[in-house]
Parts: sequence; structure tokens; C-alpha cells
Amino acid sequence: MIVKISPRGSMVQLSQLEVDSLKQSAKSDLYQLYRRCSLAVLSSGLKSDNAAELFEKHSDFQINVLQRERGLKLELVNPPAEAFVDGQIIAGIQEHLFAVLRDILYLSTKYTNLKHINLTNATHITNVVFDILRNAQAIPTDRDPNIVVCWGGHSINETEYRYTREVGYQLGLRAMDICTGCGPGAMEGPMKGAAIGHAKQRIKDARYIGLTEPSIIAAEPPNQIVNELVILPDIEKRLEAFVRLGHGIIIFPGGAGTAEELLYLLGILLNPANQDLVFPLVLTGPKESAAYFEKIDDFIGATLGEEAQSKYKIIVDDPEQVARVMKEGMGDVKSYRRSTGDAYQYHWSLKIEPEFQLPFQPTHEVMSNLDLRFQSNKAELAANLRKAFSAIVAGNVKAETITLIDRHGPFQIHGDPDLMEMMDTLLSAFVEQQRMKLPGSAYVPCYQIIK
Amino acid sequence: MIVKISPRGSMVQLSQLEVDSLKQSAKSDLYQLYRRCSLAVLSSGLKSDNAAELFEKHSDFQINVLQRERGLKLELVNPPAEAFVDGQIIAGIQEHLFAVLRDILYLSTKYTNLKHINLTNATHITNVVFDILRNAQAIPTDRDPNIVVCWGGHSINETEYRYTREVGYQLGLRAMDICTGCGPGAMEGPMKGAAIGHAKQRIKDARYIGLTEPSIIAAEPPNQIVNELVILPDIEKRLEAFVRLGHGIIIFPGGAGTAEELLYLLGILLNPANQDLVFPLVLTGPKESAAYFEKIDDFIGATLGEEAQSKYKIIVDDPEQVARVMKEGMGDVKSYRRSTGDAYQYHWSLKIEPEFQLPFQPTHEVMSNLDLRFQSNKAELAANLRKAFSAIVAGNVKAETITLIDRHGPFQIHGDPDLMEMMDTLLSAFVEQQRMKLPGSAYVPCYQIIK
Amino acid sequence: MIVKISPRGSMVQLSQLEVDSLKQSAKSDLYQLYRRCSLAVLSSGLKSDNAAELFEKHSDFQINVLQRERGLKLELVNPPAEAFVDGQIIAGIQEHLFAVLRDILYLSTKYTNLKHINLTNATHITNVVFDILRNAQAIPTDRDPNIVVCWGGHSINETEYRYTREVGYQLGLRAMDICTGCGPGAMEGPMKGAAIGHAKQRIKDARYIGLTEPSIIAAEPPNQIVNELVILPDIEKRLEAFVRLGHGIIIFPGGAGTAEELLYLLGILLNPANQDLVFPLVLTGPKESAAYFEKIDDFIGATLGEEAQSKYKIIVDDPEQVARVMKEGMGDVKSYRRSTGDAYQYHWSLKIEPEFQLPFQPTHEVMSNLDLRFQSNKAELAANLRKAFSAIVAGNVKAETITLIDRHGPFQIHGDPDLMEMMDTLLSAFVEQQRMKLPGSAYVPCYQIIK
Amino acid sequence: MIVKISPRGSMVQLSQLEVDSLKQSAKSDLYQLYRRCSLAVLSSGLKSDNAAELFEKHSDFQINVLQRERGLKLELVNPPAEAFVDGQIIAGIQEHLFAVLRDILYLSTKYTNLKHINLTNATHITNVVFDILRNAQAIPTDRDPNIVVCWGGHSINETEYRYTREVGYQLGLRAMDICTGCGPGAMEGPMKGAAIGHAKQRIKDARYIGLTEPSIIAAEPPNQIVNELVILPDIEKRLEAFVRLGHGIIIFPGGAGTAEELLYLLGILLNPANQDLVFPLVLTGPKESAAYFEKIDDFIGATLGEEAQSKYKIIVDDPEQVARVMKEGMGDVKSYRRSTGDAYQYHWSLKIEPEFQLPFQPTHEVMSNLDLRFQSNKAELAANLRKAFSAIVAGNVKAETITLIDRHGPFQIHGDPDLMEMMDTLLSAFVEQQRMKLPGSAYVPCYQIIK
Repeated sequence: MIVKISPRGSMVQLSQLEVDSLKQSAKSDLYQLYRRCSLAVLSSGLKSDNAAELFEKHSDFQINVLQRERGLKLELVNPPAEAFVDGQIIAGIQEHLFAVLRDILYLSTKYTNLKHINLTNATHITNVVFDILRNAQAIPTDRDPNIVVCWGGHSINETEYRYTREVGYQLGLRAMDICTGCGPGAMEGPMKGAAIGHAKQRIKDARYIGLTEPSIIAAEPPNQIVNELVILPDIEKRLEAFVRLGHGIIIFPGGAGTAEELLYLLGILLNPANQDLVFPLVLTGPKESAAYFEKIDDFIGATLGEEAQSKYKIIVDDPEQVARVMKEGMGDVKSYRRSTGDAYQYHWSLKIEPEFQLPFQPTHEVMSNLDLRFQSNKAELAANLRKAFSAIVAGNVKAETITLIDRHGPFQIHGDPDLMEMMDTLLSAFVEQQRMKLPGSAYVPCYQIIK
Repeated sequence: MIVKISPRGSMVQLSQLEVDSLKQSAKSDLYQLYRRCSLAVLSSGLKSDNAAELFEKHSDFQINVLQRERGLKLELVNPPAEAFVDGQIIAGIQEHLFAVLRDILYLSTKYTNLKHINLTNATHITNVVFDILRNAQAIPTDRDPNIVVCWGGHSINETEYRYTREVGYQLGLRAMDICTGCGPGAMEGPMKGAAIGHAKQRIKDARYIGLTEPSIIAAEPPNQIVNELVILPDIEKRLEAFVRLGHGIIIFPGGAGTAEELLYLLGILLNPANQDLVFPLVLTGPKESAAYFEKIDDFIGATLGEEAQSKYKIIVDDPEQVARVMKEGMGDVKSYRRSTGDAYQYHWSLKIEPEFQLPFQPTHEVMSNLDLRFQSNKAELAANLRKAFSAIVAGNVKAETITLIDRHGPFQIHGDPDLMEMMDTLLSAFVEQQRMKLPGSAYVPCYQIIK
Repeated sequence: MIVKISPRGSMVQLSQLEVDSLKQSAKSDLYQLYRRCSLAVLSSGLKSDNAAELFEKHSDFQINVLQRERGLKLELVNPPAEAFVDGQIIAGIQEHLFAVLRDILYLSTKYTNLKHINLTNATHITNVVFDILRNAQAIPTDRDPNIVVCWGGHSINETEYRYTREVGYQLGLRAMDICTGCGPGAMEGPMKGAAIGHAKQRIKDARYIGLTEPSIIAAEPPNQIVNELVILPDIEKRLEAFVRLGHGIIIFPGGAGTAEELLYLLGILLNPANQDLVFPLVLTGPKESAAYFEKIDDFIGATLGEEAQSKYKIIVDDPEQVARVMKEGMGDVKSYRRSTGDAYQYHWSLKIEPEFQLPFQPTHEVMSNLDLRFQSNKAELAANLRKAFSAIVAGNVKAETITLIDRHGPFQIHGDPDLMEMMDTLLSAFVEQQRMKLPGSAYVPCYQIIK
Repeated sequence: MIVKISPRGSMVQLSQLEVDSLKQSAKSDLYQLYRRCSLAVLSSGLKSDNAAELFEKHSDFQINVLQRERGLKLELVNPPAEAFVDGQIIAGIQEHLFAVLRDILYLSTKYTNLKHINLTNATHITNVVFDILRNAQAIPTDRDPNIVVCWGGHSINETEYRYTREVGYQLGLRAMDICTGCGPGAMEGPMKGAAIGHAKQRIKDARYIGLTEPSIIAAEPPNQIVNELVILPDIEKRLEAFVRLGHGIIIFPGGAGTAEELLYLLGILLNPANQDLVFPLVLTGPKESAAYFEKIDDFIGATLGEEAQSKYKIIVDDPEQVARVMKEGMGDVKSYRRSTGDAYQYHWSLKIEPEFQLPFQPTHEVMSNLDLRFQSNKAELAANLRKAFSAIVAGNVKAETITLIDRHGPFQIHGDPDLMEMMDTLLSAFVEQQRMKLPGSAYVPCYQIIK
């Protein structure tokens, strides 16, 4: 089956050089990257978090960029049927396809060729993240602080899912925009809820921002409510985009990925340079999930201490209250940014240390060098803990890391025995509650806690 | 509590004469009508279908029209708290308040004063319905046939509700607009579902049309997804608006009101003048409701015959198929209208006999004169059956008729014994399935079948 | 030649009753009125102020209203060729055609049939004018006071024309909207100038309002810059529309019509009830026209006195200053309206006496009864003087009055000899300067001053 | 005087690195370039073509880029007063200021740093021109071929100016967009005329494209009707932008610059690779300018031959006919592009030889090496002739070249005596008709024809 798709949303005119760079015949890495991301986007709605399976199933899928009188068109060869309704591509997916094209191309033609950008320099990285978001038109000037980032598991139960939707509904009633990692579960629920809230408030320009990156997109295909999809180059730039773009963050129950995100954020907020920042942060879930947050809170208290605990508020089973806290937070953020002269739509003054910015590639060697111990430098401990969880996420869902694990066995995580005990407890709970992977198969841990 | 509300959506400039006509001090009928409709709109989301209770509870509610530099404002005294989020009125409700003002005022200043309009003349009635819809900007010229009317009960169970939402979702994915009686249940589900479908298809100008009338609005307050609310003067003009505005109709499970609507429609479609009309009509529900439609179908077969049965299609448990049938129907309607030169957005050529147009006021006398018998003039039988069900709806939810019933006892419905037997069976099933009133109190029938 | 025209701008859906009322076959007065106004609109740009000639030349023109699937279309039979560019109707004219349809129909179906409106009651007249403007969507709520009415002759010389354009340019640069009688000359120049000013300021929603009436429209066909054309029923309602809609008035050189407008306005402003009103009024022209305004000023001084003179400011040859005075005036008007609670877009509180509202039909009898004398009631004198000039305008350009003059000779204007002397001087200057009629033929006065 | 200006139109968010690159303290070349272009834009409307004088007069002007909460602002220190109306900057100028910022920054951060772009490679140059235009959002996908490029002198007489305005009016009535070099004279007249035509046709999204470059912008400041201003890096890329963006070209009377443009275009059209291209080209002026075109035509005939003459049509004193020819041409271009699969909005398939692409820097040495002779390769002769005229334009208006002339005397132009004779005649006529510079001072030729 061959389908031709017209542009929608972004990037509709390409130069001949750009088209050439994406020519499939080239068998280039760029083409493969582009093809895989496009396939992920076309698989939106799929109930699976297994990227390898997806690629396998659609090994005959191809995508070609064509020049036409009115600009470009995409030719899809053997696309997944789910992307179509009665033979017509769903507009949300069509938009996402062109967002993929825009971002892949921008990254490739710009940053692989720029002499003056140094991607190991913290300032340059922050500018690159800005530049990518700006190119995706994700940094408007006419809006007040209004973006609530929702983090949480892609694999959550029905009660939790409904709760995320209800929180989204209350956020939508209060006119807030939603930003998530753009996959299913806690990344979709708040958007669906907000859509109803926005409809009741007649808000037509609501933003449903999805931030993803090439190695995660296929495991967590963007849901179609997302109306601003941005593909960052790697996990660290994606995390930086979340915390510089978002004006407040809500964390729903989740697994290792959610723990990674929380540790990343606490690691940054514990940086003395960020001490006075206004950054509303709420951990919330239905009453059935109260125990989950107690465990997380205990773990944070024991490892990062009270200061870290003071950075967030836990609210159980009260969507309205969550939304009210965020709404007030938006006003506080506005005042704070104005008083410091910082941009409303990109948090330049947030200090992020290189250890949170430089790409972390989990390998067995790197993991065996990671020695987790209680220490007074809490930001550094947070950074290290974050790496441990990041490795587990990668071992769970990223094709490349899964291969590593298949070959060399689970990652060995070691350190202070008490700390190891705590991690074991936390991770076991994640496994037990089926937060690591979508239910359907037995979860085989990609890690081993060395006590 | 006093709140001032700015205009939204419609009717934002009034003349001094118009403002005077709505002055509360006048204690006029017009003011009371206006006040009650406004109160109903402010009670959106209320889980009740008891208008008297609502009026009772908010007896201290007042609404005043104020002239300001930029046009008018509404002053609400003691409005229901549910209409507000953190002290701000919900935009959807705000819009509905001004739709009420627009329609009440239009009807009063125009039709009570026009010399040249005769409201017992069929052509004039049809022109008046058109005029009201046009004044509400509900007759755009730039759209193809696209409006699916969804009829069904306000009191349906969770399984049925989800089904209506799923059908709405599939309609939304196919870019169809939704029109309902604008209350809860089967009137809300399709709109909510369609909202998600429209969001995925990036449709920003979708229409969620709600048609109501003053005597029903308080029992079935408009849901807030409705973005075009129109208040017709009476039940017959509301029904005429449905069938001239809608391009296809889906009937979900419901009670007496839904039966009334189906009989009204079949009565019209059985008119020989309408024989060749294209009018897609689907009866549908989840598999759990299969029996319900069997009963309805049997009743129609036995009373109105096979021709009537040929006018609709019953589809069980297949939302996609329902949506596809409607989508194809839209194309057929377009071809048909073009071939006959009839307007796309108002079905002028549909022939409606006066017995379906003239206001039917159910009283004990009228009901005792209604003799229901099998007869060869099926359209006439449909008209009479419709009146019987209309009376039951009124006895269930309309304040005025409830008072009548309280005073004189239930309506006596009589006629051919076999027919009475059938009606009894059907109505008993409605009662048993809690379709007559929202669950929560025992249903006391407002009618008595005389066998 | 037969052309079918699709709707543009206004009124695109008609009911069957409305279409019937405009059926040409009816040979009705309404159809004739509609036909003549449409013909006038189609003759935009014509360098002629002779309505009779126009009707004569296009005696085979017909216009028919057709119902189509998407609403109505107009069928033009033998329309003037000037309305078309390469066979396509000019969009501005297309818009005007539908404005004519809207207003003619509104007036006819509404006011000829309303029982509760009394067109000899001052309040009712004011409400009718409001209603017509509102129906034409000429009363927006979201704009601040911003409308500058420009009055002046349709027959002015090149130097004056350029000056009106320059004033318009300066008004446009300051973002003001323009309202005129919508003919050529001083009614077109300011709009053309403002269009350039607005373009430089990137103002896309500028308003170019043209107010006309059936008896004048053919002598002064609307120029195509006008993007809001409203046809009022008669000269007095048109004048009332000017002074209630406009927030300030500029008077350029002109003939009898301009004098009529000035006297009308002064008559109202001299009403003690309007004593404190804020109403910016500037008389202006190029330096070559300085003498013109001296004469007018002398005439006003001698007849209506210093108070009348204090109501306006004369600015010679300084477009920037004119625009600055108006801009400041807009701010003053806003403050004043807010302080008094009057509407920004319709000046309800301006007091207009019935003698300025009731239609004045100049006949020989009426004119011979008009005894013009100096008197202490200046407002009354202004009213009488205005009638004299109104009669002269009618005798110059209105078909009906021209017929009267042809039959019974010129109107006899008499009164106090000194006053007559002054009028004679003023009118002779108008004649001499070719302000009465477009140059090209010798002007034969339709009046006689009896000294 | 210090004024802060908010963004309008383009480029409203800068990264910190970008802001740093424009810091005034840097005294960088980039800042100086940026400052001069901004000053030119602020001087719009100035009746002067003397850039040096302009820079001299405003030597104390500075411009600073500031970061603010909602994005950037510009701080203007001592800007020219003409850019303001009552203390407010004119919106058109405000837009142009941000277009300057956008283009200067884009060129500097992109092309000075890109490793993979070779600016001596024809394909790369063409891609760069595309990229700059796309970045300026000047390549929409939803429009049909519609851009008429108007070339002609900045110094033309009143009759010619009116004629260009009338042609523009006729183009505007036919809904065509205008693209010019964006200075005064023949670059402004068509835009002003078209603005009125567009207004009558109610076209709100008309494009008035101005293409300029840093060395010409100060001598020909953009007029404010221009709503898409693009600054190309040099004269050759500007010319390429004209011929790839425009769908047809009209040449009005002009001086050396106009001759340069015509020779550039003929040189390209005479390229055998472009033989079958559809490219409507009209030379036109009022009847008073008939002789001018005769001379040009004779010169072309004698030098480039009949084939060159066949590429254009001369139309004297008939604006409607010019507009009709262009309108038909637009349709032909559309058919041609569709049949060849070339883009509607960027003429990729037009072949341009490097000699027309590579920057030509006129110096005395280069000019003395330029040997102009009749030759069979007409495209080459056109290229050389174009260089001669280009040098004269530079000597007339570009600061840098004027300095050269001051130092080393006039350029010496030599070649075949007959050809020199012809050039002398043509150039003398330009001087005599005051086409070289704005009237007001005696023109001292910057060249010497060596016969």
C-alpha cells in the first residue's frame, strides 16, 4: 500500500539539498532514524511498549520525501493501518509526521554542520535546546506561564488512569496547558481530561505539548491529542526541555522512568544556585496509590533528606486541589520571572550542571563504576541515583540497551548496603505493581541489586 | 452573592427598549421565562431531572440585564455555585446564558409583535423555525451536510453511556457534527466522544448543537460541550428544528421521550410526499441493549408496519459501522439536496403535516379523547402514538403537567386492547429499566393504560 | 447579459417568505426600491450625480433573488459593465449588493409589520436607528471611540480632494476609522487616504463606514473602499445615525448638503440638554479654501451666534493638526461616555428633538410656509435653516423633488431680508464654486431667494 | 531620545548566544551592518538617495537588543523622528526593524558557520537564496503563481509615478501580489496603487514584497507598504531572489539600475537551458515615455538581437492591458510549473550561470578589464553589459564605491566603438532625464565612456 500525505502544521517547504539528504536510496543513518521515528508516530494508539517488535512487524515500511508544485509530500509505503480512518490518515498523526521531519532535518542540517556550537559546553547545550524548541514554534511570546508538565508511568492501572484524566480535566477547566512525554498512560490521561475542560471553557488554542526523543519514541508512541510534538536529540536534552519549558510539574505514579525524572528534577532543585527558584511540584494519585507516594517520599527522605522533601507537595485523591495549587503556582512563577527578568517561556536562569546535561549512555562498565553511597552533596547523589534508574529504563525499553542486556546479562548496581536495600524495595514494588512494562508478559529485571 | 457576567458568543448589544422589556421589576411573564431558562443553563451538570426542585432550591435567584459602555452585562444574584470554577463562571455556561437572552428576546420582540406571521399556518411555522435558527447563526452556508442528530434517553446506564460516547468518537473521527436535545445521558455522551475524535482530527470548528425549549430545559440542563444552544418556543418547533437541521439521525436507547421522537420522525417519513427523501436513520446500542431494540422494532412493526421498519437500520454494538453508515449518508443527502435544489442546511422540502407542527398540550381531556387504534393511515397512527408518549414525557418532567397529574391523577390512555397491551409492555420495560426518570426514587407512572 | 453573484459579507440565508417578498414578478414597490438601490451600488465610480439619467440608462436592468443549496444567489440582468473587472464583479460591489439586500429586507419585513413601534415617537425612532445599525453589525462592542465622520461636498476641486485624502492619511496613521455619506469627493478622499495610512500601520480591521439612504444613493453611489455600507430609511435617520455612531466630525468644503449637515449638527449641539456633551467638530480645508470657511463662519456667527461658533474649530491647511485634534477628541469622548455610562458605540444620551427626527418632505407648500427669521431660540432657527438647505439638496439631486421643481418652478425661500441677503451670498458662492452639482453642465438653481 | 520597541511580524525570541552576537559593545562588523540597515529602515519616506549623508546625519544613532520576559525588545537611541507618529513608531517600520534583525542574524549565525555550504557552488547559492526566503516566510505553499515583480527607477517624474500607481491599481484589482526593490519611485507606486485595488477587492492577505540588500538599503529605504521585507546578502542573490520568486516582471522607466536588471534577466532568458520557460515580461510606461522604451529596445536589438527582443513585450500607456497580460501570464506559469513539476513559489528549474550568481565587486581594475564587444554569445554579452551598469549604479549610490570614485576618478568603460557610442547615448539620456539620481543636485557621472 502506498499513500501520499500532504503537509500539515510544520515544515512544508524543503530545499533540494534537504530533500537529497533524506533520500532513502542513501541508506543513510539519517534516513533510518527518520524512518523509525515516522513509524513510531504512525503507530500511535498501539498498546505496546516494545519497539523492536514494532520495527520487526513493519520491516517493509518506507517513507519518501517528494517535491511537488506546492511544496513537499510524504510517500508512505506499507504504513500501519491504525493510522487511518476509512482510508484517510488521522490529522493528528499527519501533523506528527511533519513534526518528525522538521526536527530530524533541523538537527541534522544544523547541528552536525555548525562550527561554532560545542555540544559539551553547558551554555551551548542550553542554547541548542532553546533553538530546537523555537524552531518547533514551541516558545510563543504572547502567553503567560501556563505549562504544567505531567510525568508518570506509561503503564498504570485503570484507577490511576482515570485519576490522571480527572486532574487533567481540572487543569483544563483552569485554562492550563499540558506537557508530557507524549506516550500512553499518565502521559495521555491528563491531555484527554484537559481537552474536555478546555472545550467547556471554549479554549481553542490550548497546547498539548509532547516531548520525546528518538530512542524512546517507538516504545511510547505519541498520543494524538498532542498538538505540539517535539523530538529532542537525546534523553538529557528532553529532560532539560521539560524543566525549562514547564512552569510546574505534576508527578503521577510510575516506574523507573518516573523515578528517574523525579531524581533529575530534585538534583537540579537542590543545586544551591536554584535555591530561591519558584517551581511548583506536586506528587499525586488516587487514594489507592497513597502507599506508593509514601514509599517514594521515604526513599527521598532517607537519601536526599528533608530539603529535597520540601521541594514537593504530596496531594492524595484531590484533583481540584492539585489544579488549584498549580494555578496559584503559575501566578507565582510569573511574578518571579518578571522580578528576575527571566523569559516566561524558557527558564534560562535555571542552573543545570553538566552531569545532568551530558548524554548518559548506560553500559555494563559504566554501571559497574557507579558506586551509590549516602553523601552530603545531595545534588550529586541525586545525579547518580538518576543514572541508575535511567539505566533501568533503557534496559526495559530501548532497543540498543536491551541488546546489551541480552548479551551481557543484567546491569549490576552496587553501593552502600542500606541504600541498596532501599532501592531493592522500591524497584520490587514497581515490578510487583506492573509499572515496569505493560502487563501481558512476565517482567524479567534488566538489573541486579548487589547488596 | 452577586456576579456580573460579560457577553460571550451572541447578542451583545441591546436597545433601550429591549432592556426595558426584560426589567425584573416588571414581574412580567417574559422576565420569569427568561429567569427560569437562565437558571436551567446555570445548573448544567446537575444530576437531577426535577425542574420544580431546581426552581424551589434557587427561589432567591435573580438575573438583571445592565447597559454598559461596551454593551450589556448580566447581573446574577445568588446563582448556583456549580456554574463557577474558582469564582469564575465556566465559559460554556456564560455562552449559554447569552444564547438564552438572544432567543427569549428574539421570540418576544419579534413574534409577539408581528402582524404578518400566522402561527397556525404550516408555511409560516416552518419559516419561523428557520428564522429562529438563522438568528442563532445555526444555518451556515459554507458547510456540507454534516449534522448527525443523536436522540436517546437522559437516564441511561453506564454501559449505554459509554457506547454513546464511543459512537460519538467514531463520528468525530469522521468529522461529523453532533446535534442533540442537549441534556445529559445519550444527549451528552456522543458530544464528549466526538470532542476527542475532533481533537485527534484537529477540527476546531466542530459544531455541538443543542436544541431545547423552555418547558424541558430545566429538566435537562444543557451540557457544556454544546457550543450552539438554541431555545425553540415549544416541543413541536424543537422537533421540526431537529428534522430540518439534521442530515441523519441516530437513536440510542431511551424512554418515553425517545419513543416520542422516533414516532414523530416515522410519522413524517411515512408521509407519501416524503417517500423519496434521503434521511439516514440508525437505531443503535451496545450488545446488552439488543433486546431493547427488538422490542421497539416489534412495536413499530405491529403498529406502523414494514414500510416504517424500512425507514431505519438497527445496528447492535458496532460504533464504527454506525459512523460509516452516517458518513455515507451525508454524501447521499448532499447529492439528493443538490439534485432537488433544496438547501443543504435547512430541509425546506421535507413535508410536515400540521398535526406534527401545532403545539400539543396534554390535558386529561385531550388524553381521554385520544383513541389509539390500528389503522391504515400509518402517519396518522404515528401522530397519535406520538401524542401519547409526549403526554407521558410531560407528566414525567414538565412542571406544569406534573401539577395537573397531582391534581387529577394519571392520564388515562385507551384504545384497541391489543395495542394497549403492546404499549403497556413497552412502557413497563421503560419503567423497569429506569428509563423514565433518573434512578434514585421510585417511579410513579403518570399514566394508566386502559385495556 | 446575465450574471449570478454569490453572497459576500452579509445576509446569506433567506427564508422562503423573504425570497417571495422580493420576487420581481410582484412589481412591488419593495422590488423597485431594491432594484434601484442595487443599481446605484453597481454604478460605483460613475462620475455623475444624476440619478434619473442612471435609471434611464439602465432601464433594462433587473435583479432576482435565487435560492440555492448553499443559500441565496443574486441574478443580475444587464448590470453596468463598470462593476466588473475582466468579467468578475468587484468584491467591494458584491459586498454592497448584499448590504442593500440586508437593509431593504430588514426594514420591510420588520418595520412595516411591527405593531409595537411608533415611528413618530422620538424614543422609538432612536431605537429603530440603533436596530438597523446593529442588524448591519455596525455596533461592535470591543472597540473604543474611534469613528471620525467626514462630511463635505461630492463635487470638490482637485486641490480640495487631495486635501481630504491627506487628512484621511493622517487619520489612518493614527488608527482612526472613517465614516462618510459614502459618495465621491469629500466622502471618498478621506477613505482613500486612510487606507494608505492604515496599510502603513498594518491595521487590517479598519472600518470605512458608508451611511446612505434610498433617495440619495443613486446620486452618490457608494465608493468601493466602504466596507460597511448601511442604508437608512430616510435622510433624518441617516443624519441621526451619523451623530450617534460618530465620535467626532470633520467638515470639508461642500455645497448645500454640507451646510444642511452643519446646521443639523449645530441645531442639536445648541440644545441645552446637550450643553456638556463632548463632540469634537473641526471645519477644515486647504489654504485655497480659507475664504470658504470664513464665509460659513460669518454666516453661523450672524445667525446662530457665538455659542454656535464655539462648538467647532476651524483649521486651515494642516492635516496633521486636524488628525491630532480628532485623536485627542477620541480620548475625551471615551472618558465622557464612561463617566456618564453611555455606550461607546451608540450615543444614546445625545438629545435630538423631533423636528430633527421626523422626515422632512420639501414641497412648494412647505417651503412657502417656512419663514426664516433671526430669533433667540437658536436651535429652532438652525432647524429651519437646515430645512431650507435640505430642500435645495433635494431639488438638486433627488429624482422626486426634481420632478416637483420641473412642474412648479423653483422653491421660494423667504424671511427676514438681512437673513435672505446672507443666504443669497452663501448660495451664490456655492454655485460659483461649482459645489452644487458636478461640473459639466450649467447649474440652474432649484430655489429663489425672496428678498 | 531612547525608545523601546516591541517585536512585530518576525523573529521575536532570541537565544542568549544570538543576543550576545549583536551586542553593540562588541563594535563588531555585524553590529555595524545591523545598525546601518536598521537606520535605513527607520528613514523610510526620506526623499534622498544619499546613504553617506544619512549615516552622517544620524551618527549618534544606536540600536540595542534587549531580552525581556516575553522575548526581545529593541532599544533605539536617537532614531530619526520621521519614523514616528505622535511619538509612536509606525507599525510598518516596526515590522521592518524586526525583518532586518531576522535576516542579519540568520545570515550571520547560519552561513558564516556552516561547514557544508560552499558559496561558490551554483547549487548551493540557489539553496541559500531559497533558505533565506523560507526563513523570512516568503515561500508559502498555499498560493498559486501570483507575484508580479516591478522594476524601474527610484527617480522618476510625476507622470511616470502616477502611471506606475495606475498599473499597480489594475494589478491589485486582479488580485496580483507585488514585489519590488522596495525603495521609492517605481518601487513604491505599484504598491500604493495595488493597495487601493486590493481594498476594493477586499483582499486582506495581499503581499507587498520588498527585496533589498545591505549596500542598497540606505540609498533606497523600504517604503512602508512593503509587508514582507527580505534582506539578501548581496546584489546577485537579490537578483536571483527576484527571478526565482517572481512569476512575471514589469519594467517601468528607470536609469542604470533598471538597465542592469533588464540585462540580468535577458542574460538568463537567453540561456538555451531556459529557452522554453514561461516568463511574462512587459516594458511599460505612459505615452510620454514611449521614446524611452524605443531607445532601450533599439539598444537591446543592436546588442543582444531579435531573440532577446522576443522575450519582452512593450506596452505603452495602457495599464489595464499590462495587468491583463500579467494575469494571463500567471495562468501560463501555473500550467508550465505543474507540467514540469517545478515549485509554484520558487523557480528551481530556472538555470542561472555562475557569472550571474557570483558577487561582482566593481573596482577600477575590474572595470578596466571589462572589454565590451558585440559577440555571438548573447548571454555572455548581456552578463558583461550588466556588469557595466552595475558598476555605474554602485558609483551612484553605494557608499563604498563612491569613496573609490572620489579617490581614483570615474570608472573607464571601454570596448567596441559602436557599442560605446550606443552606451553613451543611452546613459546620456538617463542623465538628461534625471534618472541617475534624485533631482536637486547636478549629476556628476561616475563613469567615462572610452570611445
